[in-house]
Amino acid sequence: MTNLLGEFFGTMVLIILGCGVVANVVLQNSKGERSGWIVITAGWAFAVTMGVFAAVATGAPNADLNPAVTLARCMAGLYTPAHALVTMGAELAGAIVGSVVVWLAYLPHWEATESQALKLGVFCTAPAIRNPVGNVICEIIGTAMLCLVFFTMGAKSVGSIPAGVGPYLAGIVVWSMGLSLGGPTGYAINPARDLGPRIAHAILPIAGKGGSDWGYSWIPVVGPLVGGALAFFIARGLGLA
Amino acid sequence: MTNLLGEFFGTMVLIILGCGVVANVVLQNSKGERSGWIVITAGWAFAVTMGVFAAVATGAPNADLNPAVTLARCMAGLYTPAHALVTMGAELAGAIVGSVVVWLAYLPHWEATESQALKLGVFCTAPAIRNPVGNVICEIIGTAMLCLVFFTMGAKSVGSIPAGVGPYLAGIVVWSMGLSLGGPTGYAINPARDLGPRIAHAILPIAGKGGSDWGYSWIPVVGPLVGGALAFFIARGLGLA
Amino acid sequence: MTNLLGEFFGTMVLIILGCGVVANVVLQNSKGERSGWIVITAGWAFAVTMGVFAAVATGAPNADLNPAVTLARCMAGLYTPAHALVTMGAELAGAIVGSVVVWLAYLPHWEATESQALKLGVFCTAPAIRNPVGNVICEIIGTAMLCLVFFTMGAKSVGSIPAGVGPYLAGIVVWSMGLSLGGPTGYAINPARDLGPRIAHAILPIAGKGGSDWGYSWIPVVGPLVGGALAFFIARGLGLA
Amino acid sequence: MTNLLGEFFGTMVLIILGCGVVANVVLQNSKGERSGWIVITAGWAFAVTMGVFAAVATGAPNADLNPAVTLARCMAGLYTPAHALVTMGAELAGAIVGSVVVWLAYLPHWEATESQALKLGVFCTAPAIRNPVGNVICEIIGTAMLCLVFFTMGAKSVGSIPAGVGPYLAGIVVWSMGLSLGGPTGYAINPARDLGPRIAHAILPIAGKGGSDWGYSWIPVVGPLVGGALAFFIARGLGLA
Repeated sequence: MTNLLGEFFGTMVLIILGCGVVANVVLQNSKGERSGWIVITAGWAFAVTMGVFAAVATGAPNADLNPAVTLARCMAGLYTPAHALVTMGAELAGAIVGSVVVWLAYLPHWEATESQALKLGVFCTAPAIRNPVGNVICEIIGTAMLCLVFFTMGAKSVGSIPAGVGPYLAGIVVWSMGLSLGGPTGYAINPARDLGPRIAHAILPIAGKGGSDWGYSWIPVVGPLVGGALAFFIARGLGLA
Repeated sequence: MTNLLGEFFGTMVLIILGCGVVANVVLQNSKGERSGWIVITAGWAFAVTMGVFAAVATGAPNADLNPAVTLARCMAGLYTPAHALVTMGAELAGAIVGSVVVWLAYLPHWEATESQALKLGVFCTAPAIRNPVGNVICEIIGTAMLCLVFFTMGAKSVGSIPAGVGPYLAGIVVWSMGLSLGGPTGYAINPARDLGPRIAHAILPIAGKGGSDWGYSWIPVVGPLVGGALAFFIARGLGLA
Repeated sequence: MTNLLGEFFGTMVLIILGCGVVANVVLQNSKGERSGWIVITAGWAFAVTMGVFAAVATGAPNADLNPAVTLARCMAGLYTPAHALVTMGAELAGAIVGSVVVWLAYLPHWEATESQALKLGVFCTAPAIRNPVGNVICEIIGTAMLCLVFFTMGAKSVGSIPAGVGPYLAGIVVWSMGLSLGGPTGYAINPARDLGPRIAHAILPIAGKGGSDWGYSWIPVVGPLVGGALAFFIARGLGLA
Repeated sequence: MTNLLGEFFGTMVLIILGCGVVANVVLQNSKGERSGWIVITAGWAFAVTMGVFAAVATGAPNADLNPAVTLARCMAGLYTPAHALVTMGAELAGAIVGSVVVWLAYLPHWEATESQALKLGVFCTAPAIRNPVGNVICEIIGTAMLCLVFFTMGAKSVGSIPAGVGPYLAGIVVWSMGLSLGGPTGYAINPARDLGPRIAHAILPIAGKGGSDWGYSWIPVVGPLVGGALAFFIARGLGLA
């Protein structure tokens, strides 16, 4: 049970700080408005670090925070399928609750921002060029890289990473993914990170909001899950899982 | 007593480097003029790291540097209320003295800068959109997140963070808060950080200064204190305090 | 054999994330388009960190990922010449495969980008000012600095760097090289990093691609190899190799 | 003797990478041209990290790389005055040689750059607003903060920082100083860093160079030395030296 609490709480922290940085960069009049990709990616990186601390402290030592990571670790034998499924549910619930906190933190900025696409972009990803095949390939590659790096960081030959350094490195991994593979789709690379806030966007009374772009929503769910599974097979082939 | 000296000295260092980076970015002709949110937030992050080293080295191992953190830790039983109060006083005093050093370091730039709002902005925060309810909610959320992350970093399950790494991580925590939750109010998330420099602004003979915006000054004091208390209750609920 | 696998896999990860960040910054409509040198250099830095984790986890504890580093370490007696040569081959092969993944990840963006030079720039380096003597000197200096720093990090007087921190520091070394010495030639400082993706560019069916600028291709191969050898001689003179 | 070699070599590395990043940002056509204050300060930060590794590896465990730091540590009893003086000489010599390497690395860019001020700016600092009293105060404050933080990082209560982490933190200290106190004078905060490259600028056959601004040259020498002495007195008062 504490495992579920940890995944819920850690993912909530991840989304508050992750969707928070997008809000800061895209919403009208925000102090970080138009401060660019380095701010977006650094914000998500440290959101992961903080989320991992939150999860580890509250009973989830693996700190997946991501159904794709949970799937890859389930395939590697860390969880039963049933446990993996409820873990994914906890992650999704944390993501939804986290989005509500972002909406509250940026309360005066929703009405000030005209663009419905920018407001939706605070919550979930959208492709730079809408191209389902290309977009899903990008999400598969990004998530496979993410999970593969996590498998390599856990290898015996790497050694035992000191306390506190692991959560920091987890953030750097996601910083790397965002910098290098985030261009085409905005690197969801995590079904809960995209679907949870999208659900929140659909429900919340956001001033002047538009549609939640459900037509795209399957890509940042399916792509990451396929990527996580792919990472497991590669890691298994390399003797890492 | 050394505890008070450490909090005074650490907060002084925090403010010299924290308000210093704002001066660098907003004052006319400064080398870092208009270098943006990444510079502002990195500057405050490392200001925290340096402030924590300063505090730890001079007798304040907890290195609160922030009355909201002191309040949360007092509620968690680390300090008596009387000790917490004098600690807050030491933090405020350190912030005032630190502001004077920033004024000196940027001496030729005050006259060169026309905007009174920018000059005030070196010292204390101002909202992006003036909206008392929204602004105080944002400061509550930001400070609650800050204090919660500190509670999680101290959890037993996280393990013992190596020397030197802790102060660095404290800086990363504040970097994260600035990137993700700093947009609406400029993330005071610390009553001493805002009130101390505001007092200094009111007193110092800054060339061409305007008013000190006392009408807003309660928000970055009350919001963070409420946020710190809120963090304590959540941390208590999660078994972290 | 695992050593070769590690160098292959690590260099593949390096190139996916390294050439990936260039794609993000230069390709049309990418979310990181025109986000500048800090994004390029941070992306390559973390690409190195991830590549080192990947190499160490899969049997290459030295994690050269770079024929110039392999050469310097071969001269220092870590490898036989024959082993160095096959290692270089594995690195080159990893770089070629990694480039294919970048092409796939950014699939919809090749047609959207008009400039053939920008598309080539995703794969391999080009000089800011075409000047063979100046360009090769810059690559020699950059690579010599890179290898020298690696020699100093391995010195006994530095002590034993904790697990996980080494790969991170390796990334910071390359971040430093990019920030400080990357201006004139785009810091190949690694023959595999430049030649591998250039070969991939020549082979892949990239939409609207131009030539692969083979006239320049010897400089980012010869310069780094000379730089690696030079670093060995300096390190030997300093008692570091 | 190895101590002198280490300070020479470490300061040379510091200047190659430190002046290198300025060249990258200010010289015409360089890939990092106009990439701003975050690049400048990150470049100098990592230059320090690399310089400290270089110094520690070659016999200078303290890795001062800075006559102001050497002075403060001499006053604290770590060196005899005679030893401090020759150490400063080694640092200055390293800075001069390092500048020559930067000139070589950016060889084609000197002729391409018209502005004599920008070319001089690669080598040494210039004030944002020329105001001797204000400028020298800024250099005193910046160097005093630098040295004070180093004193606090060495305090017993901080604990024993792991191998490899110390050089990284030294870089973060200088990143902090640049971000927060570098605006008015470009943060020489090191007499060797400014005087050495200025001498090199006067001697080297730089295409289209102007004067070396000797009228300003005393400020980044005297200010930092006063700042280092001031830091010692404060550290002594605080029980840190």
